[in-house]
Amino acid sequence: MNDRTATPVTVIGLGLMGQALAAAFLKAGHPTTVWNRTTSRADQLVAGGARLAPTVGDALQASPLTIICVTDYEAVHELLGASDGTLEGTTLINLTSGTSAQARQAAQRAAGRGARYLDGAIMAIPQTIGTDEAVILHSGPRADLEPYEQTLGVLGTITYLGADPGLASLYDAAGLAMMWSVLNAWLQGTALLRTAGVDAATFAPFAREIATGVAGWLPGYAEQVDGGSFPAEVSALETDARAMAHLVEESEAAGVNAELPKLIKAMADRAIAAGHGGEQYPVLIEEFVTPRSG
Amino acid sequence: MNDRTATPVTVIGLGLMGQALAAAFLKAGHPTTVWNRTTSRADQLVAGGARLAPTVGDALQASPLTIICVTDYEAVHELLGASDGTLEGTTLINLTSGTSAQARQAAQRAAGRGARYLDGAIMAIPQTIGTDEAVILHSGPRADLEPYEQTLGVLGTITYLGADPGLASLYDAAGLAMMWSVLNAWLQGTALLRTAGVDAATFAPFAREIATGVAGWLPGYAEQVDGGSFPAEVSALETDARAMAHLVEESEAAGVNAELPKLIKAMADRAIAAGHGGEQYPVLIEEFVTPRSG
Repeated sequence: MNDRTATPVTVIGLGLMGQALAAAFLKAGHPTTVWNRTTSRADQLVAGGARLAPTVGDALQASPLTIICVTDYEAVHELLGASDGTLEGTTLINLTSGTSAQARQAAQRAAGRGARYLDGAIMAIPQTIGTDEAVILHSGPRADLEPYEQTLGVLGTITYLGADPGLASLYDAAGLAMMWSVLNAWLQGTALLRTAGVDAATFAPFAREIATGVAGWLPGYAEQVDGGSFPAEVSALETDARAMAHLVEESEAAGVNAELPKLIKAMADRAIAAGHGGEQYPVLIEEFVTPRSG
Repeated sequence: MNDRTATPVTVIGLGLMGQALAAAFLKAGHPTTVWNRTTSRADQLVAGGARLAPTVGDALQASPLTIICVTDYEAVHELLGASDGTLEGTTLINLTSGTSAQARQAAQRAAGRGARYLDGAIMAIPQTIGTDEAVILHSGPRADLEPYEQTLGVLGTITYLGADPGLASLYDAAGLAMMWSVLNAWLQGTALLRTAGVDAATFAPFAREIATGVAGWLPGYAEQVDGGSFPAEVSALETDARAMAHLVEESEAAGVNAELPKLIKAMADRAIAAGHGGEQYPVLIEEFVTPRSG
């Protein structure tokens, strides 16, 4: 299936995600080199036409473009340190999960080896790799991404965020915080409604509609945050806080978990205590930018 | 503007919301009686054609349908206790904010006075009352709501939830938990991205897309909850927990508030400790139905 005109690629790290990435390249006709510490993980890919590199160094030299998708940044640093020779002319796309600080550090390390480097985050499950549904965030020098945008496009929808290599991790973390928050709020509501005999399937469309509706407010609320001015056009924080008290009371009286309601209320109460009771909800950004560990 | 064929209505409680409700009835041509402890709150409505009742008892007798929208359920009980005479033939729609237990108690109290009673919750701000955008939840005997559905429809979109008068409060609390959770997750992300110089307006559309996307999963996830079976079709909780650790680490390293990330992780960690690490996220319902106050 290899296409002599297709860019050769290397995939390092063959967990479920790495295997899916390599398989998508193979399917699109890219000469694909793979490497993994445990070589047996490459068996299926080799059967499908991939070449198993004998060493990390060989894998890094085999293609102008290498995708790294390993367990953590410690593993990234190990493999960058392990290989000999220059990495000039190599572009590394590191899709390993980690923090923005780790991404920036890896970018420096790669630059020290002469490589071009972009950091990425996969907002998808392995099963959707190779479809538009798989959103893959990239950050780093735009000029280094451009030659490979078409090649990377066989993996999913490539989104470029900016030159700071930490951006992909930050957006990824922010997106995950939203994901878990929507799921947790839905579970909180599901637990509350269950006390009245309402099943999850009955409540879910209601929860979906609220989440979608509130999501639509965000661009407008962002203007308040960026402007640093929070007039109570819709509702004042102190009015919200009274409803929050009902939510806490309802959760406790119903005998369900009240931790999430209590955190919601505690943050608003602190903003009110700081004098923001007459302002609108986004004024809570002041609480969120303040370090606190609970 | 009064229409002799339009149902006469009474509105008790003239805060911003009560005033908006009465104004919507007046605008639609309903003979409207109002009452409020502080009578000056009625001035504008009286100028617009409303009749100010001299006593609560008079207000309750003036119309077959009375909307109650006061500060809290204590005020509801006071006004139900204060008036003399039977309330037979009267239908009360209580839109006062409170908990499901308070709603059920008020329903019993109203029944003791001979009144028909439905409890409601307004998921809207006063400015949108009188438009379809204002969603008003109702719970209680359906047969008692039906004669007045058209009349109540001038206030907004009437949603009927079921016979248990506590349902409107429960759905309201659940909806608010979702609202604040989406806003808080967005603020968490906004705070994280700000550390890299990204403004709120740039991040908001990304946050909106994630919230909307995840909201779409809820009906499917609800099937797992109702079925009590949580196969890891998309991702196992222990995989999620590793990403949660990154979110906590990212928030702490960036110097922003880490309370929400820590709560997200703590709940997942407890579910994993309880043996659910290989299952999918909705298995956390077990954590949410368990009383815990943090």
